[in-house]
Parts: sequence; structure tokens; C-alpha cells
Amino acid sequence: MFFIFHLQSNSTLPIDHFGFDENLTFQQRYLVADQHWKKDNGPILFYTGNEGDITWFCNNTGFMWDVAEELNAMLVFAEHRYYGESLPFGNESFSDSKHLNYLTSEQALADFAVLIEYLKTTIAGARYSPVIAIGGSYGGMLAAWFRMKYPHVVVGALAASAPIWQFGDLVPCGTYFSIVTNDFKKSGTGCSESIRNSWNAINHLSSTDAGLQWLSSTFHLCSPLKNLQDAALLKNWLSETWINLAMVNYPYKADFLQPLPAWPIQEVCKFLKDPSLSDKFLLQNVFQAVNLYYNYSGEASCLDMSETATKNLGQLGWYYQACTEMVMPMCTDGVNDMFEPQKWDFDALSEECYKLWGVRPRPSWILSMYGGKNISSHSNIVFSNGGLDPWSAGGVTQNITDSLVAIVIPDGAHHLDLRSRNPLDPKSVQQARALEIRYMKQWIEKARRNH
Amino acid sequence: MFFIFHLQSNSTLPIDHFGFDENLTFQQRYLVADQHWKKDNGPILFYTGNEGDITWFCNNTGFMWDVAEELNAMLVFAEHRYYGESLPFGNESFSDSKHLNYLTSEQALADFAVLIEYLKTTIAGARYSPVIAIGGSYGGMLAAWFRMKYPHVVVGALAASAPIWQFGDLVPCGTYFSIVTNDFKKSGTGCSESIRNSWNAINHLSSTDAGLQWLSSTFHLCSPLKNLQDAALLKNWLSETWINLAMVNYPYKADFLQPLPAWPIQEVCKFLKDPSLSDKFLLQNVFQAVNLYYNYSGEASCLDMSETATKNLGQLGWYYQACTEMVMPMCTDGVNDMFEPQKWDFDALSEECYKLWGVRPRPSWILSMYGGKNISSHSNIVFSNGGLDPWSAGGVTQNITDSLVAIVIPDGAHHLDLRSRNPLDPKSVQQARALEIRYMKQWIEKARRNH
Repeated sequence: MFFIFHLQSNSTLPIDHFGFDENLTFQQRYLVADQHWKKDNGPILFYTGNEGDITWFCNNTGFMWDVAEELNAMLVFAEHRYYGESLPFGNESFSDSKHLNYLTSEQALADFAVLIEYLKTTIAGARYSPVIAIGGSYGGMLAAWFRMKYPHVVVGALAASAPIWQFGDLVPCGTYFSIVTNDFKKSGTGCSESIRNSWNAINHLSSTDAGLQWLSSTFHLCSPLKNLQDAALLKNWLSETWINLAMVNYPYKADFLQPLPAWPIQEVCKFLKDPSLSDKFLLQNVFQAVNLYYNYSGEASCLDMSETATKNLGQLGWYYQACTEMVMPMCTDGVNDMFEPQKWDFDALSEECYKLWGVRPRPSWILSMYGGKNISSHSNIVFSNGGLDPWSAGGVTQNITDSLVAIVIPDGAHHLDLRSRNPLDPKSVQQARALEIRYMKQWIEKARRNH
Repeated sequence: MFFIFHLQSNSTLPIDHFGFDENLTFQQRYLVADQHWKKDNGPILFYTGNEGDITWFCNNTGFMWDVAEELNAMLVFAEHRYYGESLPFGNESFSDSKHLNYLTSEQALADFAVLIEYLKTTIAGARYSPVIAIGGSYGGMLAAWFRMKYPHVVVGALAASAPIWQFGDLVPCGTYFSIVTNDFKKSGTGCSESIRNSWNAINHLSSTDAGLQWLSSTFHLCSPLKNLQDAALLKNWLSETWINLAMVNYPYKADFLQPLPAWPIQEVCKFLKDPSLSDKFLLQNVFQAVNLYYNYSGEASCLDMSETATKNLGQLGWYYQACTEMVMPMCTDGVNDMFEPQKWDFDALSEECYKLWGVRPRPSWILSMYGGKNISSHSNIVFSNGGLDPWSAGGVTQNITDSLVAIVIPDGAHHLDLRSRNPLDPKSVQQARALEIRYMKQWIEKARRNH
């Protein structure tokens, strides 16, 4: 599906909203679709772009297109700085920590605020349009934070699958992986056990050159494994694959991170029924499973461990953000989850970040900035979370106040509610969307009354 | 009066909260007084330091000391970065725009948030202490903005004489000067008229060398006037003097900007009864008036036009802030005010700022950041304003909601309510303080219930 009815524009924004030394500007890309907009201050649904190309998010957020007519709303999709085409320093944007210095959530929120002000003053009939922020995942965190920090700019926010609490010690670091594990456990007998057993099988085989060769050829790897470090990369790559599958475990054929069939984990688990197989047979099955994820089209001649998802996501930028503000503690124990046990190691992260970018993460900053769990004085935010989505571990899954509302979609993966309506949608996501629309209407009406 | 019962400490803070490239830190000074504090999570009154030395503000904010016992509160006075001893780059802090780049309200608010988090984790018994922000003038704006942006850190804010609306076109640019004028008009017959007539008298005299010499000697100037430009400086200096008098028109002898008698404008106006005098007689009277402001002690051998107020204020830093974020449009017309007519000229300001600091002001940024008049979704802020205070022109003087409350003190000058109790206090300031304390108690109780 591809929505062509939008205009692409750029707005000129300061590279540094919070400093005046270098008065440089950059072009932020945004998309506008106004075919359903009521020109007399009809509402604006504003997508708070996250870590990727905005056209891709635009095409994967069908919910906004589905409700535009009902709400007489204009749609705006704003690209996050340092992603897609919104590169503050062009090709130099990622060259060093000096050029990366303006890649923060605070700068991104300021971009959104200034962009909305600009739209309201330049689009005829938009001066008093109530604006609602909508986003998913990191974009959902931005939507929620946007309402918290700029309530004069947006009357409310829909924060879908937004793990705003996956910071500090707000939630246990292992829940994320136990949710992934549960998704596999529920999707086929022996499935999560097979994966749990696969790590040792890889460890055994990677201890010899012959084993490494066998692994390389069995997994159809584009670059063969040469040593134990490569074997560790293989395990990371497999782990990421299982995680991604949990995120996109949608009830119908879809192409978000990869083209996949309906309920892909069930499909994957068909290969992983017998965890008691010997190492090589077990791993051959594991290959079949990951091959479904990476090669559903059947066109790949080999599997490339350096890529786990769509190229539309800006991995480099997100890595920098994880090395600065977005420090999300994660851990596995191999008991409550199917992964190799790994403690959360902040010092190791910090060293790696320093080596890579010359920066050190500040793990408590996000808590100081956005309040952690102490957010009850804010209002008009709907937090939606899918029960199948590992990111729900850090999400708001219980109401905080009358106007800080949690919606749980038991059969939903990562922000399923933001996707287009589909005949195969479970009832729970249909109900969630209906409730979300009800809240949006309330916010709009209240804003009109206050105006 | 001098309060000695406080401890002075420093906390280590990032110079740049919003960027990770340069991981530099600086020492922020703060003062703590805990003799009345109830150690089991008693409240904290947190002074959001403004553009000056924090010990000076500490000694001029007697209200906090007066209520500490009643509220069982700890007092904390935090120094604003780039003022007093809290210089991020020591003596280099003002050397160029690169070093000044971190002097913004956003960085200052982040300092306060991180400092409070630090205090709560390091002071035994303070973990769940409700914190109330208190500030006056620019510090009052910071107190209000702090509650708006960090409601998880402070349960409420007292923003005294805080002109949060003296930006953009939120209020008329001339009201400020018409309030100054009214103060003089009410304080003596012929007073504001004398001042209005003084400008032309100066213009006449400064057209000749003999006249310039006469002005220099009549005004006892330390550096004699040499040309028309110097004469313009004289007029600016006189204007600032009248403004300052309006700010410190307190009902008792005080020493805030300068040592002064009670109701100093009344004293000044005793010299300015006859506006119809010839130029020289009129200006001799004007000298008597300003001499009262600058030389109440009688010790000054000459008057220094380069100084209009206490050295405890950081003029250089504030000038930079006025050249970047704090763009407050001001204008005079000579009709509704007693000043020479002068339009608001943003372009001239911008040029001057660029020459001086290499920066350009962004006049709409504060509005985008802090919401302008659209702040009704916030809560728990008391805005107090003095009817005599020119800064009330940009202040919140009417209730916005049940919990965004305005208190007007008709007989009050600049944040009179923040000063120590005094037998000569007008009833209106006594009532204002009582109401302020009532709100603070409500915020504290509500925070306890929520905890």
C-alpha cells in the first residue's frame, strides 16, 4: 500500500535550538495530506517521526489515513532530524561527535514545536487547529513527551508501543526478553526450547574450524564465520531476529521490517518443534526459521548478518542515541527467557560508546528530563501497548489518571493499532482504535470549547 | 540583615545538558539552610536563582526565611549558571560566543532539576520531600517555567514579579514605561512632568560644548560628557534610574539595588515639583533627584554613569541573554509615559547583538518553548505582581485556572512579597504572603496524599 496524496515540503529550522553560537539551519522534511481537512481550523494529526525515513513511517501508519476523514483532519508527518533526508550536515552528519551533537530527543521535540507554529501561521485556516501528536515506538515516546513538554502545542498524544519506562530501574531489565520468549512459547510446542538449546549447539560447533565452516554454509551466510567473535555475532544476529519477529508478529501478511506471512512466529515455530535434536539437526531447523524471516520472497542468495531489518530505519543514528540519552537497560537469564544469560553491563556500553563516538551515555538524564514514573500531573495521553510486543515491558499498561490512559491490546504486536484497518484484525485492536478515536475527539472538542 | 545559618556547597553538573560532544562539567554553587527542616521528608523551598550572585538573592529573599519554620522547610538557593561563582569556564566564561553558548534558561532549568535529584538522593530523609520553586523577576519566570517543564521535580511554584508575557506581541510594548510614569505621577505634583521636560533641557544644553561641560559638572559625573553620544548615554542613565526607582519603591528603608529611604520616589519627587522651570534649574533639580538614588549615603565623590545598580547583578550575562532568548519588546511614546519617544526596533537590537557577541536573537523561541499565553494546562503556580512594579506589565495579573493563580499587590514594587516581613509592610503584601503560604501548604499536602 502506498499513499500518494501528500505533499512533501521542508521547513528551515535551527540546528541548535538550545544554543546561539552557531546560527546554522537545516531543512526538515515533512509530508502533508489535507484532502480530508476541514479548512476552518479542522484538527491536525501530527506524526512525531522516529528513527527512520518519514515516507516509510507515513506508509506504515495507515491508522492516521483511516481516521482522517472521520475527524476532518489534516495529516502531517514530520521527519526526525538525522534520519531520512533531514540531515543537519548532509553527508557529514554522522562524521564525528561534533556533527552528531544535535541528535537528541529535546532538539527533535523543539523541531516539532517550531514546525507546528510555522504550519499554523502559514496554512490558511490552521491558526486555531487543535493538533494531536501520534507516534509509535520511539516516535510514541516522542509523542508522549511532546504533550508533556509542549502542552500548548498539542492538545493530546497517542503514544503507541512507547517504552517510556525502559530506563533506569523503572522496570526489570529482563521483562523485554521474557515477552519475546512467551511469544515463541505460545506459538508452537518446543519452539522456545529449541531456540534456548540452539546457543549451546552454536557454542559447540564454533569451537572448531570445521564447525565454523559448517555453520557458515548451513546458515547460507554471505560472509563466512572465521572465529569465535564471528560466532558471537551470529548469536546476536539470531537473537535480533527472534526479537524482530516478536515485534512484527502481526495477524496478517505484512511488510514492516521484512515481508512476512500472517502470524510469522507460528510459521517459524513449525520448524522448531523438537528441542531435543542433536546440534546439527537443531541448527538446520533454526536456519529454516530465520530463512523465513530474511528470505520469505525466496530471492536472497545468501543471508547478510549485518542487516536485520528494513534499510528505512537509521541504525547508525539510533545507535548514537542509545549511546547518549536512550540508555535502556536489558538483560537475560536463560531461565525466564530463551536467550543466553547476559547481565546488564553499563560500563561495557559506556566504553563501547566512547570508542565508537567519543561520547559517554548519561543514563539518568532521561529520567530527570521526562520524569520517569512521576508523570501524573500531565494530561491527555493515551498509551497503547500490544501484549505480544516486547516493548510493552517498558510501556504504560495501567491508567495513571483519568486523562493518562493505558490501552492494552492482548493480541497486538508492535504498534499494531497504528497500522491500516485489516479484515484479519483481532477484536482487541479494533476496540483499541475505537477508544483512541474517542479520546482524540474529546481532546479536540475540549480544545474548541477552551478556544 | 544577613543570614548566616546556611551551608555553601557546589554540585557538579554537565555544562551542556542537551549535547554529548563535550563532556565537560562545572561547579554550581548552592546554599542550604536546614535548621527548621523536618528531617522526615519535610518540604524544600527551592530558590531558582536568577541573574546575579546567589548570596545576594539569599539575603534579599527574607520571605523564605520567614516561612521556613512554619512549613518545617529546608531552604535551598541555587545559583544560576554564568552568575556569581557558578561560571562554567571560570574567567573565560564571557570571552566569546562559544563559551557563552550554554547560557540559556533551558540549561539553567536542567541544572535545577539535576541538582534537586542530587539533593534528594544524598540528603538523608529528603527522598520524598515535596519541593516548591520560588523566584522573583527572571528567577520568577524560571520558577514558573520550572513547574511547567519539570512538574515531576517541583510540586508548585511561586513566581513573584515574573514578566513571562513580556515577549513577542503578548503585551503592549509601552505598558512597562507607563507604569514607571504613573509611579512618579502619583508620588508628587509636577514630578513626572519635570522628568518629561528634562529630556529637551538636556538636548538643548548638549548642543554646545559649554552646555556639555555644565551638564558634566551639574550631574557630578566621574567622566565628563564629550559629545552628543555621551549626552545620549546620560539620558539612558537617567531613564534607567527612574526605572530602577520604580522597581525598588519599597515602603521602608532598604538596600536592594541601592541604599534608599522609604518610598524613595516620594523623596525624589520632592525635588521635582516644578516642571516649568528653565532648563538649568530643572536639571539641577533632576540632579538632586538622581543623587538621592546614587548617593543616599552621601559618600560618593562623583556619579558613575556606567553603574545603575548593585554589582551583585551580572549585567554582562543578562545582556547576552537579552541578545539571544530574552527578547522583551519595549517602547515609549512620551505621551502615555514621561520618556523620550522610542519605537521598539528589533533590527537594531539584532545588529547590536551581532556586533557585541556574534549572536542573533530569536524573538519567537521563548514563545515556542514556554507557550506564551497558552499555559492553562499547567498547574500549581502562583504569579504575584506589584501594582507599582513596571515588570507587572508582562506579568500574569488575572487567574488563569483554579491552580494558576494571580495575586496583585497594589502597593507593591518589584517582588516586595519575597522580602522579609517589615512593620511598615502594607496590608496588601501581608495578605499576598498569607495567600502564598496557603497555596504552598495545599501543594505540599496534595503531594503527600499522592505519594
